[in-house]
Amino acid sequence: MTAGPINMRSEVALAHWARALTRSALQEMLTATVQPGTISFALGLPAPELFPTADFAAAAAHVLAGDERALQYGPHLTPLRRQVVELMKLRGVACLEEQVFLTAGAQQGMSLLAHLLLEPGSTVITEELIYTGFQQVLEPFRPEVLTVPTDPQTGMDVEAVAELLRRGVRPAFIYVITEGHNPLSVSLHPAKRAWLVELAEQYAVPILEDDAYGLLSYEQAAAPLRALSERWVFYVGSFSKILAPALRAGWVVVPEELILPLSVAKEAADIDTATFAQRVVSAYLDTGRLPAHITTLRHCYRERRDVMLRALEEHFPAEASWREPTGGVFIWLELPAAVDVDELFKTALESEKVAFLPGHAFSIQRNRNQPPSMRLNFSHAPPAQIAEGILRLARVLKGGKLR
Amino acid sequence: MTAGPINMRSEVALAHWARALTRSALQEMLTATVQPGTISFALGLPAPELFPTADFAAAAAHVLAGDERALQYGPHLTPLRRQVVELMKLRGVACLEEQVFLTAGAQQGMSLLAHLLLEPGSTVITEELIYTGFQQVLEPFRPEVLTVPTDPQTGMDVEAVAELLRRGVRPAFIYVITEGHNPLSVSLHPAKRAWLVELAEQYAVPILEDDAYGLLSYEQAAAPLRALSERWVFYVGSFSKILAPALRAGWVVVPEELILPLSVAKEAADIDTATFAQRVVSAYLDTGRLPAHITTLRHCYRERRDVMLRALEEHFPAEASWREPTGGVFIWLELPAAVDVDELFKTALESEKVAFLPGHAFSIQRNRNQPPSMRLNFSHAPPAQIAEGILRLARVLKGGKLR
Repeated sequence: MTAGPINMRSEVALAHWARALTRSALQEMLTATVQPGTISFALGLPAPELFPTADFAAAAAHVLAGDERALQYGPHLTPLRRQVVELMKLRGVACLEEQVFLTAGAQQGMSLLAHLLLEPGSTVITEELIYTGFQQVLEPFRPEVLTVPTDPQTGMDVEAVAELLRRGVRPAFIYVITEGHNPLSVSLHPAKRAWLVELAEQYAVPILEDDAYGLLSYEQAAAPLRALSERWVFYVGSFSKILAPALRAGWVVVPEELILPLSVAKEAADIDTATFAQRVVSAYLDTGRLPAHITTLRHCYRERRDVMLRALEEHFPAEASWREPTGGVFIWLELPAAVDVDELFKTALESEKVAFLPGHAFSIQRNRNQPPSMRLNFSHAPPAQIAEGILRLARVLKGGKLR
Repeated sequence: MTAGPINMRSEVALAHWARALTRSALQEMLTATVQPGTISFALGLPAPELFPTADFAAAAAHVLAGDERALQYGPHLTPLRRQVVELMKLRGVACLEEQVFLTAGAQQGMSLLAHLLLEPGSTVITEELIYTGFQQVLEPFRPEVLTVPTDPQTGMDVEAVAELLRRGVRPAFIYVITEGHNPLSVSLHPAKRAWLVELAEQYAVPILEDDAYGLLSYEQAAAPLRALSERWVFYVGSFSKILAPALRAGWVVVPEELILPLSVAKEAADIDTATFAQRVVSAYLDTGRLPAHITTLRHCYRERRDVMLRALEEHFPAEASWREPTGGVFIWLELPAAVDVDELFKTALESEKVAFLPGHAFSIQRNRNQPPSMRLNFSHAPPAQIAEGILRLARVLKGGKLR
């Protein structure tokens, strides 16, 4: 694993958190994955050939031909907020336009909410293995992070959350990915969803629900927590996975009283003006093509998932284990205890040109002694590359690394 | 003035800074300025009719026809960084591609640098009257802010800065707008520029130089501080004023060792991926049309400035005073002590439908007892509206408000 502390020889007095910075594994990967010839299962990238490029070009032309104010500073884009309300219905959530706040992607939604909720000495509850971008959101605030385990079949250990709350822990918020869990690909059990929301209400603790993959499910997905509580669930959604990441368009659904503080926080971060990209997204949504596009994505990603599962069955050693994900874009693999996953990573990248992310990269406690595991993405590479990449990975695993 | 504390009746435990939030005057204005029939001198909006809309449409079509990866997650856009290096030459700054970091506008540049430099207990030195967006950047960190006066002819009181440093103050950074000062429209005297940089070097204190208006000067602008120190000046630039705000494209020029921490901070904020808008800007810059466009902007804004100055001469009472700005997009007016500027603001907006910003809105110490003053923007409204708006304002001033 190439992640490690940054050598900051700067004379500039950086803030403590920035001095303690570690290079992001994902940043390394973004560079590695663009090396020609490398098959990358490392990141959660959409399939670029499915981007509705022609539709976007039409939408951009439409926006620019319409009104020069499309490029001006301006208040929040009301039509897009209305369109998000419609989109949320596809997720089984009823919300109001007044509860929708537009962001530069899900990451900004989380970052702004963290700015509003965290201060020195705050506590956060989440799972031990969790999306690295969320870890980065926390870094500048250096909160105490309390972690609970994740059951591979039913998701976050809500009993452990309840126990922490019973013991008097009052976190600024609980962070959870209910659908298409990143990296564990588990869907939170419906009974646990209800229980978690009950706890939030009982202890007056908000839940930050990250639903970036919520619309990419391959079976009937359960409704998100936000469907169960309008007051205590702060929902984060994104167009990055269902449309395109480079547009930087996402949203949050929160109680109406949080919209104004969010707007102030966003103004500090990047002015909070309606962006050209938001207008392009809105014009695209006006065509009514998004639901069919999501169906196409689900079909394509399910097929790629199945190709990867078949290749794993065929080539991977019996000692490795994994589950069929019902949503999201990752397969989580557990490897025998003897495997040195950092060695595996290095050899795979160097000698076989296949990239993945070692499981310990997702440890929020930076516990590198996780049981050896890997996260494999199946949305980005075409099916033939997936089959080839798994074959190559299996070769590395069998070639002496699986001791 | 409609700014005031937000009534947060939320049950949610917000961070202290967010509980103390005041509604942004600029957010109010963004809404007020879109009321039909209102002539707005309130915000620093570009003239929308000058946006190179057709060129952008061509650039967007080019980007989307080129490579579907234009919409994918990807590393920083190297061509745009190279183009920024060329653009900086127009400002008299020699820098390297490796010192350029792309941001979602100047605001994000400031916000990310604040994240890297500030922590609880930090001190910042700046001027008493300063860009409100910078004030918002500071809010979550609640640093001690030490202010120095601004001389209306030569800018920031550098002697006062020197005195603070001699007394042992060691700020996390000094914030300054050297060209097109917002709101005071003063250009920092060249001798003061040299002295300020000397102080930064002597005391090892970085300067955050906000140059959002640097390319909009109506005379020969002095080179920014960054031309004098590669190590201690962190330069913030923007395409918002010279191209279009809704693209959210800006940059910082910093010592190379800060690029990686900036990238980590931006990844936490919004993923730090090359955006569609950045690619459109880059494709536009490839046409080579930006220098001519900037010349057009300067010509047009100089003309509008002159229309406003003539209207002020003609209609405003002799007791009001102002200077001809040599850069930026604002005229700063000082009014006789007897004027109640909040009353003036209210009456102007309600009975004459003219908007401006009261000077005290820019007081970083929230000192509402500033001598009565106003900031007038001259870039947004067409010349005829400028003349009409000043006439209306003068009517309000003379109609009993100038006691």
